[in-house]
Amino acid sequence: MKSPNVTKNSVISRVIQEQMEQGGFIRKAFELGLALKKQYGEDKVFDLSLGNPILEPPDEFRKELQRLVNNPFPGMHRYMVNAGYPETRAEIAKYLAEETGLPFTASEIVMCVGAGGGLTLALKALLNRGDEVIVFAPYFPEYLLYIAAQWGISRVVTTDSNFIPDLKALEKAITRRTKVVIINSPNNPTGAVYSKDTLRSIGQVIQAKESRFGTKIFIVSDEPYRKLVYDGKECLYAFGFHPRTIMVTSHSKDLSLPGERIGYVAVNPECNRGGELGVAIAFCNRAAGFVNAPALMQRVVSKLQWTCVDVSEYKRKRDFLYKELTGMGYSIVKPDGAFYMFPKAPVANDLEFTMELTSNFVLTVPGVAFGTPGYFRIAYCVEDRVIEGSLDGFRKTAEKYGLC
Amino acid sequence: MKSPNVTKNSVISRVIQEQMEQGGFIRKAFELGLALKKQYGEDKVFDLSLGNPILEPPDEFRKELQRLVNNPFPGMHRYMVNAGYPETRAEIAKYLAEETGLPFTASEIVMCVGAGGGLTLALKALLNRGDEVIVFAPYFPEYLLYIAAQWGISRVVTTDSNFIPDLKALEKAITRRTKVVIINSPNNPTGAVYSKDTLRSIGQVIQAKESRFGTKIFIVSDEPYRKLVYDGKECLYAFGFHPRTIMVTSHSKDLSLPGERIGYVAVNPECNRGGELGVAIAFCNRAAGFVNAPALMQRVVSKLQWTCVDVSEYKRKRDFLYKELTGMGYSIVKPDGAFYMFPKAPVANDLEFTMELTSNFVLTVPGVAFGTPGYFRIAYCVEDRVIEGSLDGFRKTAEKYGLC
Repeated sequence: MKSPNVTKNSVISRVIQEQMEQGGFIRKAFELGLALKKQYGEDKVFDLSLGNPILEPPDEFRKELQRLVNNPFPGMHRYMVNAGYPETRAEIAKYLAEETGLPFTASEIVMCVGAGGGLTLALKALLNRGDEVIVFAPYFPEYLLYIAAQWGISRVVTTDSNFIPDLKALEKAITRRTKVVIINSPNNPTGAVYSKDTLRSIGQVIQAKESRFGTKIFIVSDEPYRKLVYDGKECLYAFGFHPRTIMVTSHSKDLSLPGERIGYVAVNPECNRGGELGVAIAFCNRAAGFVNAPALMQRVVSKLQWTCVDVSEYKRKRDFLYKELTGMGYSIVKPDGAFYMFPKAPVANDLEFTMELTSNFVLTVPGVAFGTPGYFRIAYCVEDRVIEGSLDGFRKTAEKYGLC
Repeated sequence: MKSPNVTKNSVISRVIQEQMEQGGFIRKAFELGLALKKQYGEDKVFDLSLGNPILEPPDEFRKELQRLVNNPFPGMHRYMVNAGYPETRAEIAKYLAEETGLPFTASEIVMCVGAGGGLTLALKALLNRGDEVIVFAPYFPEYLLYIAAQWGISRVVTTDSNFIPDLKALEKAITRRTKVVIINSPNNPTGAVYSKDTLRSIGQVIQAKESRFGTKIFIVSDEPYRKLVYDGKECLYAFGFHPRTIMVTSHSKDLSLPGERIGYVAVNPECNRGGELGVAIAFCNRAAGFVNAPALMQRVVSKLQWTCVDVSEYKRKRDFLYKELTGMGYSIVKPDGAFYMFPKAPVANDLEFTMELTSNFVLTVPGVAFGTPGYFRIAYCVEDRVIEGSLDGFRKTAEKYGLC
C-alpha cells in the first residue's frame, strides 16, 4: 500500500520511501482510528495501539527535577563529553555492578537519546556494510529500520508458541557474516521474559558458532522493560551468558519518561578491551548526530537508578484484561512483563481482524507489523476506562468470528 | 595517526575506526591540553578550542522552565508525534512566517535533537547511496560524518580569502549526482556571514545546474548561529534564494542550551509538496533512532522564539581579541557572526603551529580539522579571564614565528 504523502518522482530517498510504504497498513489503521475519534469523539474510541505509558513519573523524579531547575548553576545546560556526565555514568555503573556483580565503571556506560538512540549507537559502532543481524519474530519493528540505517542485513528467526527463541532456527541462521543478535526481554510485543535456560542456550549457540567461524558475535540486549515484570518473575541480565553483550535501555518505561529520550548503553566489562567499545559507542553519539543525551535529564536520572513506577498498576491492568479476553475465547500467552499482550487473531488475516476491531472502536496493531501474522498486539499501558471501554468491541468481534 | 583506543583485530565497524583515526590529531592535541591542565592546573591553561558557549541561558528560559516543572500536568513527559508537539511547531511556523514572509505552517517544522540531529534527518530523508553533497571548506567537520552516515559522498568546494564560496568552483563541483549543497552562515569556523549577493549567486548556480541536468538539488542551510551577528549585519534566510531549501537550527547558541539537544528543521513551504518532505523528515526521527526531540525542552522553547542571549557580550569578546591578535601581527578576517575566528597560521603547518600554541598554554584547533590547513580556529565563547590569559601565549608564539 502506497503511503498517501509520497508522490511520484519524489525527491525523498528511495530507502526512506520504501520504509514509509512498508508501514503503510499501520498508517492506514492509525488514520482510520483518527477518523473515528474525530467523528465519534475521543472517549468513544479505545486506543490500545500505542506503547505510550499512562503512569506518571514517580514523585522522586518530580522532586529531583524541581530541585535542579529551582537551583540552577552555571553550565548546567552546556555540552559535556559525548558519553555523558561522568557522575551519571559512575552512578549507573555502581547500580549495574551491584545488580550483576560485574566490575562496571563509567567507561562501560554511554548515555544515549532513549533506547532507540542506544540501539543505533551499538549497531553503528559494530556493523560493517552487509553484516547480518538476527532478530526474533515477533520483533519491535524499529529494529529493521535501525539495522537498515547501518546497511546491515536483518535475519529473522522464529520463536515457539510461547514466543521463546527457536534455538535450532537460531543455529541455522548464524553465518560468518553474523555480527549481532538482538534480544528483547521483557519483550515488545509479547511480554515474554526469557528464562535462565533460554539465555544460557542462546549464549551457547552463539559461542559454538563463534568458535566454528572464528568470528565475534555480539548480543545487543534491548531492555527498557527490565523492571516491568510480574508475579515475582526475575528478569536476568544477558551479561552473565555471553561476554560480548551490550545492554541498551532507557527510562521511558521504568520512570515513564518516553518523551524525554534518556537512556544508556552498557558494555559488558569483559568485552570493553582498553575501553575500546565504550569509546567507539560514545564517538557514534557524534557521528550519528545525537552529540549527547539531554543534559538536564542525565542529571535527573543520576540518582533515580533504584527508582521505578508502581509496577502493580500494570499488573492489575494485565490481570483484568487477560481474564476478560480469555473469558471471551481469545487465545493469549499470559505476559510476564512489559505492558503488552499478543493474542492470536481468530482468523489467519490479522490485518482484516484488527480492521474489524477498529470498526468496533478498538485500536490495536496487527501482528504482521511485528513480523508475525495471525496475532495482534494490545498495549494495556492505558487508563482503566480505556481497557474497560474496549471490552464491548472485543466481545462483538469475538462473536463475529465465532469465539464465543 | 592511530587512535590509541582502537586495538588490533578490532570488533569496531571499519568506517567508525577510520573516522575515529581521522580525528586522531585533534584527539592528540586535546589530550595534550588535558595533560597540561592536570600538571599546571585548569586556570593556567587557556582553552579556546571548544564551541561550548559560556553565556548562561536567558532569564526567560529559566522562568519558563521553572513554570513548567513547578506546575506539572499529566502526560508532559510522554511520547508525542515524531515531528514534535503541534503547538511548538505552530509557534515556530508563526515566527518563521513573520521573519520570512513565507507561508510556514506546522507541517513544515520538525522538532529535532539539536542541529546535529536535524542535519542527520535532512540528509537521511534526501540521500540515496552515492549521492553527492557539497560542503564549503573550511567546514564544520561533523558534516563529513553526517554525509558518510547516509552513504553520501562529500565534495569539498573552496572559498575565497574572505571565506565566501568560490562560485566557479561550486559550478564545477555540481554533477548529476549532486543532491545537496550544505551552507553555514554565520559560519563555523570562520564567523563569515553570507551576503545577499552570495546567497543569490549560490541559488542561481544551483538552479542553472538543475535545469541542465534535469535534477533537483537542495540547499541544507545550517543556521544555529543565525542570531549571533554583529555590527548591524543581517543574516538573511536562504529560503528566499532557492525553493528547495531546508533550514536546520538549534537553540544551542541563541538560548545557550547545547547540552539539551533541542532544535528544529524547517522546510521551505515552496518545496513541501503535499507535506511530503515534512512527513519524510519526521519519519527519519524514527528511523535514525531519535524518535522525537526532548519533550520538556520542546515545551520550553515554544514561547522563546523571539528570545536570545545578550549578543553584545560575544561582540565585546570578539572586538577585544581581534584587536589584540591583529596588534601582535596575526592575520585575521574579522568575523561578522558566530563566536569563532579563523586566523592564518604564520607557518604553513597549522598543526605544528597549534602544538606550539598549546605548549604556550593556549588551546585552539588546527585548520586541517576544517579541511583548510594553514589556519587555526579560536572559539571566543569563553570567560574574559581565559581570553585575557591567552594573550601571553599568543604573543610568545607570534614572537617565535617572527610576527612581531
